[in-house]
Amino acid sequence: MATQQHRANKHLGHLLKKYSLEQLKDRLSPKHHTPAHSIPRDPRITEKTVAQRWKTLDCDASVQQELLDERTQEQQAVYQRNIENFIGTVKLPVGIAGPLRVNGLFAQGDYYVPLATSEAALVASYNRGANLMTKAGGCTALLLNEGVSRAPGFAFKSLIDAGAFVAWTLGQIDEFKRLAETTTRFGKLQDMRVTVEGNHVYLNFEYLTGDASGQNMVTIATHAIFEYIKQASPVNIDYAFIEANLSGDKKACSQSFQSVRGKKVTAEVVISAELVKKTLHTTVTRMVDYWRMSALGGVLSGTIGVQGHYANGLAAFYIACGQDAACVSESSVGITRFEVTTEGDLYAAVTLPNLIVGSVGGGTGLPSQRACLDIMGLGGQGNAQALAEVCASLSLAGELSIIGALCADHFASAHQSLARG
Amino acid sequence: MATQQHRANKHLGHLLKKYSLEQLKDRLSPKHHTPAHSIPRDPRITEKTVAQRWKTLDCDASVQQELLDERTQEQQAVYQRNIENFIGTVKLPVGIAGPLRVNGLFAQGDYYVPLATSEAALVASYNRGANLMTKAGGCTALLLNEGVSRAPGFAFKSLIDAGAFVAWTLGQIDEFKRLAETTTRFGKLQDMRVTVEGNHVYLNFEYLTGDASGQNMVTIATHAIFEYIKQASPVNIDYAFIEANLSGDKKACSQSFQSVRGKKVTAEVVISAELVKKTLHTTVTRMVDYWRMSALGGVLSGTIGVQGHYANGLAAFYIACGQDAACVSESSVGITRFEVTTEGDLYAAVTLPNLIVGSVGGGTGLPSQRACLDIMGLGGQGNAQALAEVCASLSLAGELSIIGALCADHFASAHQSLARG
Amino acid sequence: MATQQHRANKHLGHLLKKYSLEQLKDRLSPKHHTPAHSIPRDPRITEKTVAQRWKTLDCDASVQQELLDERTQEQQAVYQRNIENFIGTVKLPVGIAGPLRVNGLFAQGDYYVPLATSEAALVASYNRGANLMTKAGGCTALLLNEGVSRAPGFAFKSLIDAGAFVAWTLGQIDEFKRLAETTTRFGKLQDMRVTVEGNHVYLNFEYLTGDASGQNMVTIATHAIFEYIKQASPVNIDYAFIEANLSGDKKACSQSFQSVRGKKVTAEVVISAELVKKTLHTTVTRMVDYWRMSALGGVLSGTIGVQGHYANGLAAFYIACGQDAACVSESSVGITRFEVTTEGDLYAAVTLPNLIVGSVGGGTGLPSQRACLDIMGLGGQGNAQALAEVCASLSLAGELSIIGALCADHFASAHQSLARG
Amino acid sequence: MATQQHRANKHLGHLLKKYSLEQLKDRLSPKHHTPAHSIPRDPRITEKTVAQRWKTLDCDASVQQELLDERTQEQQAVYQRNIENFIGTVKLPVGIAGPLRVNGLFAQGDYYVPLATSEAALVASYNRGANLMTKAGGCTALLLNEGVSRAPGFAFKSLIDAGAFVAWTLGQIDEFKRLAETTTRFGKLQDMRVTVEGNHVYLNFEYLTGDASGQNMVTIATHAIFEYIKQASPVNIDYAFIEANLSGDKKACSQSFQSVRGKKVTAEVVISAELVKKTLHTTVTRMVDYWRMSALGGVLSGTIGVQGHYANGLAAFYIACGQDAACVSESSVGITRFEVTTEGDLYAAVTLPNLIVGSVGGGTGLPSQRACLDIMGLGGQGNAQALAEVCASLSLAGELSIIGALCADHFASAHQSLARG
Repeated sequence: MATQQHRANKHLGHLLKKYSLEQLKDRLSPKHHTPAHSIPRDPRITEKTVAQRWKTLDCDASVQQELLDERTQEQQAVYQRNIENFIGTVKLPVGIAGPLRVNGLFAQGDYYVPLATSEAALVASYNRGANLMTKAGGCTALLLNEGVSRAPGFAFKSLIDAGAFVAWTLGQIDEFKRLAETTTRFGKLQDMRVTVEGNHVYLNFEYLTGDASGQNMVTIATHAIFEYIKQASPVNIDYAFIEANLSGDKKACSQSFQSVRGKKVTAEVVISAELVKKTLHTTVTRMVDYWRMSALGGVLSGTIGVQGHYANGLAAFYIACGQDAACVSESSVGITRFEVTTEGDLYAAVTLPNLIVGSVGGGTGLPSQRACLDIMGLGGQGNAQALAEVCASLSLAGELSIIGALCADHFASAHQSLARG
Repeated sequence: MATQQHRANKHLGHLLKKYSLEQLKDRLSPKHHTPAHSIPRDPRITEKTVAQRWKTLDCDASVQQELLDERTQEQQAVYQRNIENFIGTVKLPVGIAGPLRVNGLFAQGDYYVPLATSEAALVASYNRGANLMTKAGGCTALLLNEGVSRAPGFAFKSLIDAGAFVAWTLGQIDEFKRLAETTTRFGKLQDMRVTVEGNHVYLNFEYLTGDASGQNMVTIATHAIFEYIKQASPVNIDYAFIEANLSGDKKACSQSFQSVRGKKVTAEVVISAELVKKTLHTTVTRMVDYWRMSALGGVLSGTIGVQGHYANGLAAFYIACGQDAACVSESSVGITRFEVTTEGDLYAAVTLPNLIVGSVGGGTGLPSQRACLDIMGLGGQGNAQALAEVCASLSLAGELSIIGALCADHFASAHQSLARG
Repeated sequence: MATQQHRANKHLGHLLKKYSLEQLKDRLSPKHHTPAHSIPRDPRITEKTVAQRWKTLDCDASVQQELLDERTQEQQAVYQRNIENFIGTVKLPVGIAGPLRVNGLFAQGDYYVPLATSEAALVASYNRGANLMTKAGGCTALLLNEGVSRAPGFAFKSLIDAGAFVAWTLGQIDEFKRLAETTTRFGKLQDMRVTVEGNHVYLNFEYLTGDASGQNMVTIATHAIFEYIKQASPVNIDYAFIEANLSGDKKACSQSFQSVRGKKVTAEVVISAELVKKTLHTTVTRMVDYWRMSALGGVLSGTIGVQGHYANGLAAFYIACGQDAACVSESSVGITRFEVTTEGDLYAAVTLPNLIVGSVGGGTGLPSQRACLDIMGLGGQGNAQALAEVCASLSLAGELSIIGALCADHFASAHQSLARG
Repeated sequence: MATQQHRANKHLGHLLKKYSLEQLKDRLSPKHHTPAHSIPRDPRITEKTVAQRWKTLDCDASVQQELLDERTQEQQAVYQRNIENFIGTVKLPVGIAGPLRVNGLFAQGDYYVPLATSEAALVASYNRGANLMTKAGGCTALLLNEGVSRAPGFAFKSLIDAGAFVAWTLGQIDEFKRLAETTTRFGKLQDMRVTVEGNHVYLNFEYLTGDASGQNMVTIATHAIFEYIKQASPVNIDYAFIEANLSGDKKACSQSFQSVRGKKVTAEVVISAELVKKTLHTTVTRMVDYWRMSALGGVLSGTIGVQGHYANGLAAFYIACGQDAACVSESSVGITRFEVTTEGDLYAAVTLPNLIVGSVGGGTGLPSQRACLDIMGLGGQGNAQALAEVCASLSLAGELSIIGALCADHFASAHQSLARG
């Protein structure tokens, strides 16, 4: 939040042109007049509750019509378990990129990838990258590890108690596993990591979650363990929380590179010098020059990992496919590497340590989201690992295309022509 | 991507049950058979191109029907400048949270905030937080600074040339400003930062972008400067790129706290001990205990800033309101602080250095997205700064609610009851 | 390396006052005239080689006299295995802080801690903190884990080869252990972590190293494994390095919090409100206020962990006690936490994940360094773990004292009076 | 501090073999018996106080003799302003590396660089790198910027007060400058940065400090400003601290890349392919391969910047030359870059944003430290900037040599032969 003095001065000057200091204080002060109407308490979706909400909002009919169109009204029951205080749906345009050939441990074949976005040039860019990789024989993708965690935290009177507590938990792993599995058919407790910081103890419980991205599953399983610990601990616990912010949930963190969080995938492709020239209108050398400079640009700006624009493709993919879009914050970190092979071709790889995807649960069962999964043949049980490999391959496609554009100096013109129609 | 040996062993074991090593190699190898059909080249939206795309995808009619429903078909022309290879729309349910009283420099009043998500409990949680803050007199919110940047990179033969180049650019600022402003009515070049790393020079151009989030605007303006530099530089440039990854575009980076990227907002509220007890069923002390432990949890896991779950609210808000969802990756960092006031009440604040929001451009003009903005009265010119203050207030609402739930041990049960219907 | 344009301008202005641009270029250009005399090749310490070096340096006799005083000359043979191109010794003043009562798993009792520094106020500050903790019953200190690692890196033709290589290594752990142990009596290979990034594989070998800090030991042990891998690997290795910079050697890294690097110690103390007032002339509340603000200051500036000034004490201790002072860069990260207990007293804790200390090897056998270890009774076999607990306790003493000074506003005056004599 | 469950178990097992849980608790508990004797209060150096301290320590005469040898006793008065509770000196062996040709803005010529260390192979490695660079025409080094900061923090009742305070301070810059300059002849306040986080305000005051590293100078200057602010502020300040941990003092932080902290220097050299082969016994390609893999190794482990082993050379140089060795923690970050030139030679550069060096003040006036500075001709007024350029050049020499050794696979053997004598 640091601001240079001359910038702060300018900002303040602008404000004081519009308002006096007294007026600014008034604007910023808490105000205790009666609030606008509350939204009716019942969070569920019925004709009546939806109508009541719109009455409370008191908008133009045209506003309501865009969100609560007829089709949405007809289908509204399907959203029951996915949202509270429902008022309608927002429609995001979906474009298709592909075919994207993936040679993965789990994903195999040529995929057409649906991407939901309102940013011009995004789909065109991923499409270009996908076709390029497909022409080169496709993208090799390897799921390296998977797991989702919850990290309850426990506070004690002293480090001595903290230590005694840790000693006790180390003997309880089997019981923890048993308890976790009473809550879920699919989740399996895999491991526990212990972090001691003074008289605080964090326990990271790491699970396999089948085909679900699994955040709810691990919360519920960990809750069973947590309740048991609170009852059975031989050491007095001062206070405890089921999640103490050491799991990396919904935030980029450097821990992703060291531990398990979602699905870790690495993907690579070799593009011949000829194909680079013909398709991207640049050279292998220049793309590697770009990689070098941009990797250090990332380091200088303090990113976690070094990469270009995973977030673009992942956000568009997550939204289209019923994934949790908030997880883009944690998923969009990783390592991109470009180099020249001894044959003079382009070697390109991405490694994403923290993909949070599932083929069941969350928004994957909603009609249009399920349709997007079905376009790839990746909806329902048995597909989560393949989904993750497609995500990584897509990310690599995006890096190739955008770096190609930056090297051929097409980056600005592409945005200009597509966004300005 | 580190994996403990015993975990790696387990993963390998699973794989080798399904496939031999040879089969695994086959799966992973590049494959050169004819790819699936290309998507027809014309990326625009016409009845014909959309039909051709669906023909290429060759899906069940029901899949097409969910994405390319009648209403979508009727409206499809509106998406022309927002997407390529359009095939339909994905529908995300929107819930409403509020009223959220914001006492901002720009935002003033009680807002009903639309949130698009498929994650159960999210809207309920933000709604609870919003109402709590409103009861307490509302959220004070202060836009601290704003700006969006592009960072071209230049490579030279030697550090000597790099130095001479920097010396030259320092005399060109006025020309750079003039050139930038030939490309845009709203964008204004504010500042230039210089980064020298060996024989590489990065120039960070920082702009004000009016009511647009401004990423395209600054790309186009910087392109004009970039072309000029390449022609006019008295020093030979080895190679150059219009963006060399030092702008923090679409990735969380620690630079956000030191420089300008989007809109920086800080927001605070004081909640009386009584209100905490009555509404959140916990105590001020326990919430501050949580903050302390979770802030260190964040630090231990290597996050940028310390915060809980900004990503949840920001993703839902960005999607509903036509913002660039990929920017959640960079926007969802910041500082949350909770403490006990000398009166025993709860002081809570959030500071978000990197909100990328606009009230014009991007997806803000699409019908359902514009409807969401209109619910708040924040669509169109003159509203971007208020939007940013609402975002920060919403983030604070979310932190209060989720930390309240963790302290009252309602976190797991809320997810359980809402997600399992 | 970012510089605001106005600062860059000022710097350039200063330079151009002294030199023309042409002169600056001349200064910066490579120069090919005959270099100054080389230092004679033999790096060992004999009367003759030392004399030859001084002849090459061609300094005033007084310079030589300060470094190569009589006593140094007499003792010079003791430095044979610790330095090359020896010319004498530098003398750092040592001050003593204590008694520091440590209640550790390994360290027990009241220690007088030798600190070598030229920074005024440093010893006084640590001394004050040590006495404070001792009055409070001493510092509880707990060694949590230990290990030192080397991380060779291997490059392959493709991800497929990288995967096959990993599969092979997982079956070789016992052989790796055996090989490692042929090189050392004390080192034991504990674990191996695998990191795959595209067609690159890093193997982190983690060792216990007895009472040595162990960096040479693990290098030599890993070399044996490395040579074996290069010969025995069934997969063709493109190229390989014995250390590929994933071990955190001599640099602060966030990995320290997740994995093993040196010795991890957490230490705590409770100081009564009365003692805070009497000794530090401030209040518990104010010290906790300081902690909160400074912890967020650390987060805002992008530190690894949150702490005050571990580096001061660790550097002074490492230098006095023959430890590797370069390791201060990695050791001086961690978590400091201050809070008010329910009784109104001060709870203070530090956790240092990455202490690199040994009681044998390195500089621990040099005469004056060994004397410093002997003052604490911690020289020689069996003392490394206790040393680490003393380091953590010392760090806590420093945090208490400096934060006390900042709260009582004695910080500037202490520096002023002691440094200006 | 995370520990895998199986490692934690092993550690616990070891402990419980030695002690029962009860015994462990006893060891860790606070103990209130009478402490060992205090060190006599007077911190100054006189024959009497030194003797009293040794009496308190109650060591073997041989211990005292090593630290308080005759020469030390004779010279002890010189340490008066550099240490408290003096008991003698520790002697570190100094080796010499060079000649190191530096073509800097400030440093010009062939330097013999004194390095104090007890780590075998360190001096030999830097010496090799220095000679290599000198043969190639020397190292180009460019001081980019300089400044040292203090960052007082202020807490207010509310964000409104915080904002009003910031508005006030923006009008006080000239007064702040005037006040700062009443305390110092050499220090000049250059800039102020403002950071608002909720109701907290941090002010970063950035100074030029002449030839001193300047930490005390800026503390004293800022104290004058701080006292004035507390008296003159028109807004009520809840509490305030002269340093709130936003200055990066003695800790590695990512802020270094964006703001001013110490001296920023970038340095480069081009080494011909032939010279690489002849001197380092490897190839340019292999060294660049190493750079790529190790840069990503750094990124994966979460370092700040990407570099090899700056800490080794900086620690040895800082100790020899009377610099503050604790600052190695902040100085040893930066960017190393190796690449192949179009001519096939090796381009190598380092950029260090945070060198804290001075040619006056601190330990630079102590006899043996001053002698080390004199060997380079860099003691006393007018030499601080040249010192920083020598530091950067030395760091580059180290990177070249160590990476050369890793590529030629001499790394382990060099350590083995030199350390084992």
